[in-house]
Amino acid sequence: MTMDGAAEQAKGPQDRLAEALAEDMAAVNRIIRTRMASEHAPRIPEVTAHLIEAGGKRLRPMLVLAAAHLCGIAGGEDHRKLAATVEFIHTATLLHDDVVDESRQRRGRPTANLLWDNKSSVLVGDYLFARAFQLMVEPGNLRVLDILANASATIAEGEVLQLTAAQDLATSEEIYLKVVRGKTAALFSAATESGAVIAGAADAAVRALYNYGDALGIAFQIADDLLDYGGTSAATGKNVGDDFRERKLTLPVIKAVAKANAEERAFWVRVIEKGDQRDGDLERAQEIMARHGALEAARTDAMGWSARARAALSVFPDQPLRGMLDDLADFVVARIA
Amino acid sequence: MTMDGAAEQAKGPQDRLAEALAEDMAAVNRIIRTRMASEHAPRIPEVTAHLIEAGGKRLRPMLVLAAAHLCGIAGGEDHRKLAATVEFIHTATLLHDDVVDESRQRRGRPTANLLWDNKSSVLVGDYLFARAFQLMVEPGNLRVLDILANASATIAEGEVLQLTAAQDLATSEEIYLKVVRGKTAALFSAATESGAVIAGAADAAVRALYNYGDALGIAFQIADDLLDYGGTSAATGKNVGDDFRERKLTLPVIKAVAKANAEERAFWVRVIEKGDQRDGDLERAQEIMARHGALEAARTDAMGWSARARAALSVFPDQPLRGMLDDLADFVVARIA
Repeated sequence: MTMDGAAEQAKGPQDRLAEALAEDMAAVNRIIRTRMASEHAPRIPEVTAHLIEAGGKRLRPMLVLAAAHLCGIAGGEDHRKLAATVEFIHTATLLHDDVVDESRQRRGRPTANLLWDNKSSVLVGDYLFARAFQLMVEPGNLRVLDILANASATIAEGEVLQLTAAQDLATSEEIYLKVVRGKTAALFSAATESGAVIAGAADAAVRALYNYGDALGIAFQIADDLLDYGGTSAATGKNVGDDFRERKLTLPVIKAVAKANAEERAFWVRVIEKGDQRDGDLERAQEIMARHGALEAARTDAMGWSARARAALSVFPDQPLRGMLDDLADFVVARIA
Repeated sequence: MTMDGAAEQAKGPQDRLAEALAEDMAAVNRIIRTRMASEHAPRIPEVTAHLIEAGGKRLRPMLVLAAAHLCGIAGGEDHRKLAATVEFIHTATLLHDDVVDESRQRRGRPTANLLWDNKSSVLVGDYLFARAFQLMVEPGNLRVLDILANASATIAEGEVLQLTAAQDLATSEEIYLKVVRGKTAALFSAATESGAVIAGAADAAVRALYNYGDALGIAFQIADDLLDYGGTSAATGKNVGDDFRERKLTLPVIKAVAKANAEERAFWVRVIEKGDQRDGDLERAQEIMARHGALEAARTDAMGWSARARAALSVFPDQPLRGMLDDLADFVVARIA
């Protein structure tokens, strides 16, 4: 392997996607900048620029573009508009999430609700949704609109579900999956599916790309939730134990609760349902999870979803872009391998 | 005039519209109830039912239906779905507004952010937007989607503008009009215009109904803003002086500021820009407005918009529904006549 080859190998699949899609991504960035402007309300680009320029990885727009190219899109602006659309939806949900979670940091910087106020975060989030809506109507494709409307409902329902399922030990894996689809997978799958549809792909290819985005998003989110009980702050950008302190019913907890004996159950009731957490409780939670193999079982689930994502792409001929998407499916679980 | 005729006359145009559109409205109410349900997140219908059942006048859905019938719609579900769509959008904006304004009362009842929390209001608002989006896609009419997307952007931009224009004495009547379109008129005009489009109306009729909704909304909002400096709590459901205390740049203030001498200007700077309000300041503001005829000028503007709304309908033949919409244009300014 040459030095260049080694360097190429060292790059993550996201970097290689960004290079392969560079021309499209430059156009998408132009659309994002133009469309988030507001002649009369300078607060809007202030707030959004803060977030959109803040080193987001632009994963979701790249998924739209990659799917469209995998399905042989000939060019034009439509797939770029849809790519900007999903980034706007993503940014809008981040703004609203930070209000809901009362977050103070996002991507290593103070959140908009901290820099400005909750009002600005709510209203600028609404503005970005509206802009997304305008952009997605422009290609004039009703099937794409249907996909994005359904994804929006799944996202919103998942968010509410997360709010009401928090602190509820009765939360099942089925509900967890709905929350995860809302938080992450619904926009991933809408991105890949709408990219395929706008390229005029056949039904089998559209379905394959929906399945890829869905499985990729679920694998990604389970890995993220796992790292909250075992990763390092450097690997995740968040602190181990955040979910525990927020009493979230993530997959490792759900699996441990399902196998709990009476004494362990009393522990979970105290720390999660009652929120009475003391020194050493996080360690005790980790110990109980280890005893029941809960982290291992969640890891196996994540790997399974990653494999499903790869398998979905098997309908496409081998080509560099498919390889990058395959690698991306490995990459999202590499942190927990 | 018979007793019945007198009673009929005493009813407001909204009541007569509700009677004329009763069958459609019953169907719209069924759609609203079905579509706001969420199998897994009972918090959603709890919050929305609280608001949607709370005696809202359903003015916006009636505007969709009236416009569609004025343009001779033959039946079907599409106009009803669009009517439910605009009610969902309206309810979503109310939920977000109450978070932004930190309101404690709406329609004489405690607001959702007070009964539940800000989180629920933000997320359930998002859920209703998403549900609105799904509903509006179903008729499969791209022109309607374009209208509603543009209205959403106008609404969101107007809200942000209102936030940033508050307390800014440089706010012009042009900016005020943008805020008013965002707050009120954009959804009124989107309702009437989309009703016309879904009925397959000719361009002139579509334009007329857009103009009617736009002018009606502006007349309504100016009247509302005027009453804040002179109405009674019973007439408006809000207290005289609320806008003053919140330092809002509404039309009467803008007109008074434009004619202010040095001493008056210092007063406006103190009470609006600096927010240093003392006993008797509201009365002083009213006195300054009276001196410059600011309330009278704003009243004249409202009457002008009301007349424009009526004039827009002149392209339609005389019929009961047109008469009710004419009367509605009178009604919204009757409170300030």
